[in-house]
Amino acid sequence: MLFRSKDIAALESRYRAALINSLSGFKPANLIGTADRQGQTNLAIISSVVHLGSQPPLLALIIRPSPVERHTLDNILDTGCYTINHVSDQFIEAAHQTAARYPREQSEFAATGLGELWVEDFAAPFVREASIRMGLKLREHQQLEINDTHFLIGEIALAEVPDDCLGDDGSVDICTAGTVALSGLDSYYNTRRLRRMAYAKPDLPPTPVD
Amino acid sequence: MLFRSKDIAALESRYRAALINSLSGFKPANLIGTADRQGQTNLAIISSVVHLGSQPPLLALIIRPSPVERHTLDNILDTGCYTINHVSDQFIEAAHQTAARYPREQSEFAATGLGELWVEDFAAPFVREASIRMGLKLREHQQLEINDTHFLIGEIALAEVPDDCLGDDGSVDICTAGTVALSGLDSYYNTRRLRRMAYAKPDLPPTPVD
Repeated sequence: MLFRSKDIAALESRYRAALINSLSGFKPANLIGTADRQGQTNLAIISSVVHLGSQPPLLALIIRPSPVERHTLDNILDTGCYTINHVSDQFIEAAHQTAARYPREQSEFAATGLGELWVEDFAAPFVREASIRMGLKLREHQQLEINDTHFLIGEIALAEVPDDCLGDDGSVDICTAGTVALSGLDSYYNTRRLRRMAYAKPDLPPTPVD
Repeated sequence: MLFRSKDIAALESRYRAALINSLSGFKPANLIGTADRQGQTNLAIISSVVHLGSQPPLLALIIRPSPVERHTLDNILDTGCYTINHVSDQFIEAAHQTAARYPREQSEFAATGLGELWVEDFAAPFVREASIRMGLKLREHQQLEINDTHFLIGEIALAEVPDDCLGDDGSVDICTAGTVALSGLDSYYNTRRLRRMAYAKPDLPPTPVD
């Protein structure tokens, strides 16, 4: 099926959202943990975390101008810190449920049964059940004029990965860690490694490592 | 293993790149097709495509300030258009090979054997072997001060998906389409759907659809 601009514009809005959300490819499934200055916690599933650079270690994310994600945004802007926790196959249902529009005074941790994990001197809660989790400090925030979404850049201040998933070269086997992938608005996948490729060079053919 | 800021800063640079690139979770694997005004084509694998909104249909991507990706960036800025093509399990090796530092006058299409597909009135080449492909018009470009990476926002002008992967609700079954996921710098995965979840509501428990 071929969709042109005018076809896309004419689609029913939920159909369009399902279609366009599928087109970027597989997406990371992360839970963003935050708290306000009174310690009221919030947890939100976000599929827009993207690597920005490794020196300094920066991740960006997109937050839509919607009521649900607004609590997360307010807390990040207020405290300057947040956590990113990989969703694993052990808690897909609870992770997805954080997308519901809970009132501000109700924590998604309590509502979904996921556990808060606090680390000294870090003002945002981690997810106890997550095997890979990071603490970030906000470095930059802009609201994009084009559609009012928020673009946030954070620096990784803390990162925890399971010892048995950390390779000698620094790569993390996130598949073994149980991390899932997302597609579209609501579909969760586990993965199987097909190929790891050697560093590509113009004068060498593509070479699988394992 | 726990890494703090000072640990990360002290890592050997390739180890740090492998680690930090693994932390965002699974990433989409896309080939970006471009051409310069003389018709010289370029193809580059990019793992940073992210959904920005569906009305208008916008995808963003990050391009590093490196020599390889610079050809892609120059072409996009020059012509205002580019294609995004899902990497599928049928051509992982060729897709990965586009990351090699070919000279500007050598097209990655020719170098890797992937086929150029041209569509009338669109000044960038699509990948013939891709089952899901899009044509985008550049809407916004900024170079981020924090680390000199380029942030590009494009609007989907054309999108093609296989009929048998398009659901009645607009969602695309990218797993059946053969789309792969990436982790870190070099690991390619296929996927298996674990769960599709119903729209989350505060007063309902999480409900799998299938």
